Amino acid sequence: MLKKINHIGIAVKSLEEALPFYRDNLAMPFAGIEEVAEQKVRVAMLQIGESKIELLEPTSEDSPIAKFLEKNGSGVHHLAYEVDDCAAAIAKMVADGARMIDSAPRNGAHGTKIAFVHPKSSNGILTELCQCGH
Amino acid sequence: MLKKINHIGIAVKSLEEALPFYRDNLAMPFAGIEEVAEQKVRVAMLQIGESKIELLEPTSEDSPIAKFLEKNGSGVHHLAYEVDDCAAAIAKMVADGARMIDSAPRNGAHGTKIAFVHPKSSNGILTELCQCGH
Repeated sequence: MLKKINHIGIAVKSLEEALPFYRDNLAMPFAGIEEVAEQKVRVAMLQIGESKIELLEPTSEDSPIAKFLEKNGSGVHHLAYEVDDCAAAIAKMVADGARMIDSAPRNGAHGTKIAFVHPKSSNGILTELCQCGH
Repeated sequence: MLKKINHIGIAVKSLEEALPFYRDNLAMPFAGIEEVAEQKVRVAMLQIGESKIELLEPTSEDSPIAKFLEKNGSGVHHLAYEVDDCAAAIAKMVADGARMIDSAPRNGAHGTKIAFVHPKSSNGILTELCQCGH
C-alpha cells in the first residue's frame, strides 16, 4: 500500500536557526521555503534520498505547529507516507479498524491528496497518507 | 554526504501494541524482532521504500528508551541517515562546527559503523550517521 516515506515533518521555532544543520552540516539539497497560509506555517524543504525533510515554523500563535512546540518543543511533528490512491488507502485503514482524522482525502500542497490517521490508532505519532499530484 | 534515510527509530512501550499499526494497517513488510542487549531494547524492523521503521521497546528500566518514554511518551526517538564513510562524515561535521556525541565511529548492529550528533547541534532531534556493514 505504501510506496515510501514522502516526508518527515519537523516542528521548529525558527527556520533560520534550524535550517543550517540540515542544509549545511548534513548537506541535504535545499528546495526552498514556502508559506502555507491555511496551516499558518512556513515550510523549508530538503531532499534526502527518495524522501524529504520539511521544517515547519509557525507564522501565528494559533498555528497547530505553535501548539505542538509549546507542548513538546522542537521535534518530529508527523510522518508522511506516499500512497498511490489516498481514498483507497483510507478505505483499507477504516476496514482494518483504524481511526482516521480525515475520512476523505483533502487537498494538500502542490496538488496532493492527503489524510491524517488519528493518533489513537498510530501509537501517538501523527501519521499522514499522501498521494502525489503528479 | 547523505545517501538516504536509513531508519526512523520510534520509542514504544510495547512492541505487541505498536507493531499491528505498522505491519497490518500500513502493511509495511515486517523483517522480524531482535534484542540488542547493549542498548537494552527489543527492536521490530519494518521496510518502507528504501528506508526502515525501527520500533524500540525497552527491556530494562535503565534503558535509554525507557528514559525517553518516561519523559516524552511514545514518539520518534532518533533519525538515522546513511553515509558512505562514517569517519569522514564525522570529520566534516566537526569541521563545520557541529558537536558530536561520538567523535569516532562505534559499532552498531549488523556490522554498521554509527555516530550520533549532539542534540545541541541538531535542534533537539537525536541524529545518527550510519554506515552500512555490507
